[in-house]
Amino acid sequence: MIQKIRVNDARFPLAKGAGSDAIHRDPIYSYAVTSLIDDSGIVGTGFAFTLGEGNDLVCKAAEFYAMQLKGRDIEELMADFGSVFNQLSNEQQFRWLGPHKGIVHLALASVTNACYDLWAKKRGLPLWKLLNDLSAEEVVSTLDLSYLEDELTAGQAIHLLKENLAGKDKRERILQTGYPGYDTSIGWFNYSDEKVRENCKKAIAEGFTAMKLKVGSTDPERDIRRSHIVREEAGDSVKVMLDANQQWTLPQALKICKELQGMNPYWIEEPTHPDDILAHKVLADAIAPTKLALGEHVPNRIIFKNYLQTGSAGFIQADAVRVGGVSEFITISLLCRKYGIPVVPHVGDMGQLHQHLVLFNHISMGHEALFLEHIPHLQQHFVHPVKVTGGVYQTPMEPGSSCDLKSLN
Amino acid sequence: MIQKIRVNDARFPLAKGAGSDAIHRDPIYSYAVTSLIDDSGIVGTGFAFTLGEGNDLVCKAAEFYAMQLKGRDIEELMADFGSVFNQLSNEQQFRWLGPHKGIVHLALASVTNACYDLWAKKRGLPLWKLLNDLSAEEVVSTLDLSYLEDELTAGQAIHLLKENLAGKDKRERILQTGYPGYDTSIGWFNYSDEKVRENCKKAIAEGFTAMKLKVGSTDPERDIRRSHIVREEAGDSVKVMLDANQQWTLPQALKICKELQGMNPYWIEEPTHPDDILAHKVLADAIAPTKLALGEHVPNRIIFKNYLQTGSAGFIQADAVRVGGVSEFITISLLCRKYGIPVVPHVGDMGQLHQHLVLFNHISMGHEALFLEHIPHLQQHFVHPVKVTGGVYQTPMEPGSSCDLKSLN
Repeated sequence: MIQKIRVNDARFPLAKGAGSDAIHRDPIYSYAVTSLIDDSGIVGTGFAFTLGEGNDLVCKAAEFYAMQLKGRDIEELMADFGSVFNQLSNEQQFRWLGPHKGIVHLALASVTNACYDLWAKKRGLPLWKLLNDLSAEEVVSTLDLSYLEDELTAGQAIHLLKENLAGKDKRERILQTGYPGYDTSIGWFNYSDEKVRENCKKAIAEGFTAMKLKVGSTDPERDIRRSHIVREEAGDSVKVMLDANQQWTLPQALKICKELQGMNPYWIEEPTHPDDILAHKVLADAIAPTKLALGEHVPNRIIFKNYLQTGSAGFIQADAVRVGGVSEFITISLLCRKYGIPVVPHVGDMGQLHQHLVLFNHISMGHEALFLEHIPHLQQHFVHPVKVTGGVYQTPMEPGSSCDLKSLN
Repeated sequence: MIQKIRVNDARFPLAKGAGSDAIHRDPIYSYAVTSLIDDSGIVGTGFAFTLGEGNDLVCKAAEFYAMQLKGRDIEELMADFGSVFNQLSNEQQFRWLGPHKGIVHLALASVTNACYDLWAKKRGLPLWKLLNDLSAEEVVSTLDLSYLEDELTAGQAIHLLKENLAGKDKRERILQTGYPGYDTSIGWFNYSDEKVRENCKKAIAEGFTAMKLKVGSTDPERDIRRSHIVREEAGDSVKVMLDANQQWTLPQALKICKELQGMNPYWIEEPTHPDDILAHKVLADAIAPTKLALGEHVPNRIIFKNYLQTGSAGFIQADAVRVGGVSEFITISLLCRKYGIPVVPHVGDMGQLHQHLVLFNHISMGHEALFLEHIPHLQQHFVHPVKVTGGVYQTPMEPGSSCDLKSLN
């Protein structure tokens, strides 16, 4: 039984320049952390990610949701978590503040993730293992599929999971080899050209075969110059992604993306405003076969559904610490699987939680094991930091979702 | 010069059943109120609307924005308010919590509206008069048109306003006759059939020629029965609108809307989730010529742009206490004018602020003077409550935007 609730505002200043992009010049990586303390003494930990300012507001909202779980048994909650999620996210007064977006939804992510962590710890299993052992019906019971009836009913979701039982054994081999990573920290926006070049060399020496550069400069020449530096250092066989962090207008994006195609980017990420579904569609059509990646700022399954329906996203970057937590992340992954679109999460969690989720997506859902973003900056703060060796995430074996922070333990 | 900032959490419990709809069964109408206190002693008042829970979080976020205006001169701020709005709404850490949606954007509405109120009070003019006296260039300087470059540049916005200078004199006659209202309070969700019938009679006796019923029941028969009660009482010449408050899935909406067409609704409002642009498009096409109305929960100009581009909205219900305040409301109204779609605001402000804005939309922008929602429940709390006589809003003459609350004065 969940006996006590604690919500903590945890902020971690970064080294100079780290984490910077075209719009976020000086972020403070922060977590609104929910702890659900079970009467067995086990603590379920979950969080949402923010860039500092306002992290306290997410904490306040998380308290509101978490208080409603007091006295509940975690196995009972998770047996029908889809309904729990639906009820929490539609609380009639609080709902006005979204619905299903912004601070209230970040807060719901924090609480939801704490539920999944507690569930896995009580079963003594790493989260990926717990999820992979569930039946299709059990998985779908944890999901809120409301407002997806035109694309994904519970029956269709169960069918999709059952279809992918074939090949599950084979896909489990990834547990031994590990899930590939890609390096986001070679090319933060404020890094000098020299530092970017040096970081590329380092990433390649470490074994990474994919890496990302921040673009979206006021001066497009800077973006083009730096993207060619990365391509030069990386060679043709390495995948190089470019991330504009919403900095372009549609007319700008149409022009600049064409120019950037010269260095053969694997994807172009967040070219413009994350709410502008139709602009992404126009752009995707104009720059095909180059693909767009997006989702870092997309708050819920309904907007992702629209992105998939328009065919504007080549890669979906849902983030379980931005959408309503693990539950909604799985829902979005199922939608993507239906559409044949890879899920490559944005890792506001620094990959701690997502290393579990991509293993589930690959093994149980049949998603391709493409690669998972890797950002090393907060590693020293986690009790069980991700282990990335040779550019590959090593399978986590501790019970839970690897989200415990040292400062709260 | 703005010398002091005050933000208040003002909540107003309603009479039993009032304000209820299919999803909000028991709301507490609440305002997160920003007061900008000028060194001249004049107080600019603005607010965002919520349903109670979490109104304090909107207040906290409003403080964050308002503090950044301390020491600034209001005329200087408003001369380039488009840039001010752009900077505030893109504050690099706080932006993560939206962007441009949810609690942070509600908070920005509160602060923005206080700026407009202070501006009008310092000039000694009702807000509608101040706005109508601005040149096209001055209006556009108050707007943030970023991410609309594909549809509405500053040049195009100025052109649109200048085009509509012709006929302005004629349209000003509405200042004498008043702006028509429609009655939302005849048919709250929890009212009995008898009470709905009685309220219809009352509304018609008061002079209203348009009214709205809440639908979205679990039992569609209830919706159909009640909608026919209203039509019966109202007769064929009165416009009757139906509001489902997002309660239907797309498959449900497709079915129920066809059945509701039997009573000839003037519009069907918020049939499904406000983020589901494509579902609205499918539904709009299926039920034409019956039109959809939406916007009460749409947070910003970019999503409205997508709704307009898909042609799924017959009426746009932007609310200046939901989107980023007066400035973004005007931006959205310009977009709608371009598309020939009427703006019929949702009135989280109980019409206090919007009575000014629809006069501007009609007189300066050439929007049709259709009607403005009327909800009487909070009238006793305002210093200058709206005056609706014979179903018509009487033109407000006091300086400012009519948003001062008695409890804060």
